[in-house]
Amino acid sequence: MNYSRKTRPTVKECVDGILNGDRVLLSRAITLIESQLSEDNQLARQIIEKIMPHTGNSIRIGITGVPGVGKSTFIESFGSFLVEHGHKLAVLAIDPSSKKSGGSILGDKTRMDTLSKSNNAFIRPSSAGASLGGVANKTRETLLLCEAAGYDVIIIETVGVGQSEIAVHDMVDFFLLLMLAGAGDELQGIKKGIMEMADGIAITKADGDNIPVAKKAKATYQNALHLFPLAESGWTAKVVTCSALENKGVNDIWQIINDYQQVVKKNGYWQEKRSQQNLSWMYASIDHYLKTRFFDHQTIKRELQEIIGQVKNGDILPLKAANELIRIFEGNAGKA
Amino acid sequence: MNYSRKTRPTVKECVDGILNGDRVLLSRAITLIESQLSEDNQLARQIIEKIMPHTGNSIRIGITGVPGVGKSTFIESFGSFLVEHGHKLAVLAIDPSSKKSGGSILGDKTRMDTLSKSNNAFIRPSSAGASLGGVANKTRETLLLCEAAGYDVIIIETVGVGQSEIAVHDMVDFFLLLMLAGAGDELQGIKKGIMEMADGIAITKADGDNIPVAKKAKATYQNALHLFPLAESGWTAKVVTCSALENKGVNDIWQIINDYQQVVKKNGYWQEKRSQQNLSWMYASIDHYLKTRFFDHQTIKRELQEIIGQVKNGDILPLKAANELIRIFEGNAGKA
Repeated sequence: MNYSRKTRPTVKECVDGILNGDRVLLSRAITLIESQLSEDNQLARQIIEKIMPHTGNSIRIGITGVPGVGKSTFIESFGSFLVEHGHKLAVLAIDPSSKKSGGSILGDKTRMDTLSKSNNAFIRPSSAGASLGGVANKTRETLLLCEAAGYDVIIIETVGVGQSEIAVHDMVDFFLLLMLAGAGDELQGIKKGIMEMADGIAITKADGDNIPVAKKAKATYQNALHLFPLAESGWTAKVVTCSALENKGVNDIWQIINDYQQVVKKNGYWQEKRSQQNLSWMYASIDHYLKTRFFDHQTIKRELQEIIGQVKNGDILPLKAANELIRIFEGNAGKA
Repeated sequence: MNYSRKTRPTVKECVDGILNGDRVLLSRAITLIESQLSEDNQLARQIIEKIMPHTGNSIRIGITGVPGVGKSTFIESFGSFLVEHGHKLAVLAIDPSSKKSGGSILGDKTRMDTLSKSNNAFIRPSSAGASLGGVANKTRETLLLCEAAGYDVIIIETVGVGQSEIAVHDMVDFFLLLMLAGAGDELQGIKKGIMEMADGIAITKADGDNIPVAKKAKATYQNALHLFPLAESGWTAKVVTCSALENKGVNDIWQIINDYQQVVKKNGYWQEKRSQQNLSWMYASIDHYLKTRFFDHQTIKRELQEIIGQVKNGDILPLKAANELIRIFEGNAGKA
């Protein structure tokens, strides 16, 4: 949705709209978050501060898996199940690599045909951004707006590229890893580090001829998970098979997520994790601010490319180059 | 070595000493790098700038592996082999977790009994530091001093904890992963992400009854490595077995490292990688400077603990906390 600056909604309009579950105003507020204009971001921050008391009441689910694992199809199937059972679902995405991959992640809403037509599902494609830190911060803020708008299940999708999973893991309650049976098996693209972060693993495409390999994969992963030390959460990751094609297994996954919630709410880990995530968020915001302030500095911008070239060619020492840029920055800090 | 500020060596003394291979002055200069006093760090930077033209002529080897894999014993055996063959070896360490582990890494030089007595080996325990970024920068600088002092092989040791391997990988030419045969096999503590970074894998403790399992592990890892896409270096990681006890296999590893050098120097990857590492170093220096400047700011220091408590308790929103700290920082930036 495009709108000129004249029709930019006020903070109050956005806040009231979001709290009433108005999807158009929710979208507009998210656009303010994603905007490259700092005045838009300022408005967004005011909105977020106002809606904060109404956030925190969803289950936040991170979903990852290598390209080809069937993430969209899975989310379509899982999401439809949730909506049918009376939930309001928001689907967001983090994809720092979208420039490379052509923005395939959620880029095409039609891949989630049923969901995108539901009044109880809100699908928002990945926000663009140069740095993962920046994109992650924007997704965190978007998540809060969705919670305030009454969405009680938030899915954050990411691609299997390493750093973005860590960012997502850092903002969700439950981390679900989708895996393919057969395709190179344990050694397929997924890094073991990602597996260690998973609270649940779903073997996708467990239908037809695929059922035996899927069952075998389930057993293999279950064994593998038992070799890991017990997680801080006191929860051992569960493995299920599922088929989006035949609409099987999504209920099991929802059951597991509910079991997980029960365990960690009882042992205090739920609250502890959210506290830690808040702290991470604070540090991430500061970090993002410091880097933006430095690298968006006009003189730095002007000098950086040349200095990068000199460093790569060995014409200037990295430490000296850093000091040079810092000197420029400090000398001009007030005049940015 | 302790010395009072009165006897702190001059930049010229350090530079001349280092270029003459004086171990005492090399140690003193490293102490300036590791110092918490910024005036010491300033001196260190001047020294580094002066010695830079004399750096870059070593092979930089990163070595990692889970605790218990026998890293010290391996380095003792491998290092003694190198010294016997006319090399000058420096052994450094990155251990951001040393506060937790009690500084076991290289903390006890006597674990490398033979090496530590050799005139041609220089062993420097891990520098302390709160952040991995800070520790890594200090290790980079130390590495350069060692090169200027004539050490032609530099080993940087790290523990198998994830982030520190990435930091080390980012500053070495060759990354060697030590693995134990048998102990949980493919799924032992080592993350697959680390395996993907390895240019060579050495199965340790391949002696006595262990020989069959070690050979089997070698075959398994070799197969696993073939499933990875070809590395940018054009080099496929090699796997060997070795025994520090029986002094076997270290020559094979040295041969592999030399083969690697030949391949990547020919195809241009060697220079390309060092260029990239220089750029990473520049960014890491800027990042470290920005964070240090912020979190060492007196008012921030005074307020931070209380704000952390408030964020964890949910009394203040993370974004607001970040903005609050930023406001304090900006309001006082000139008066730090």
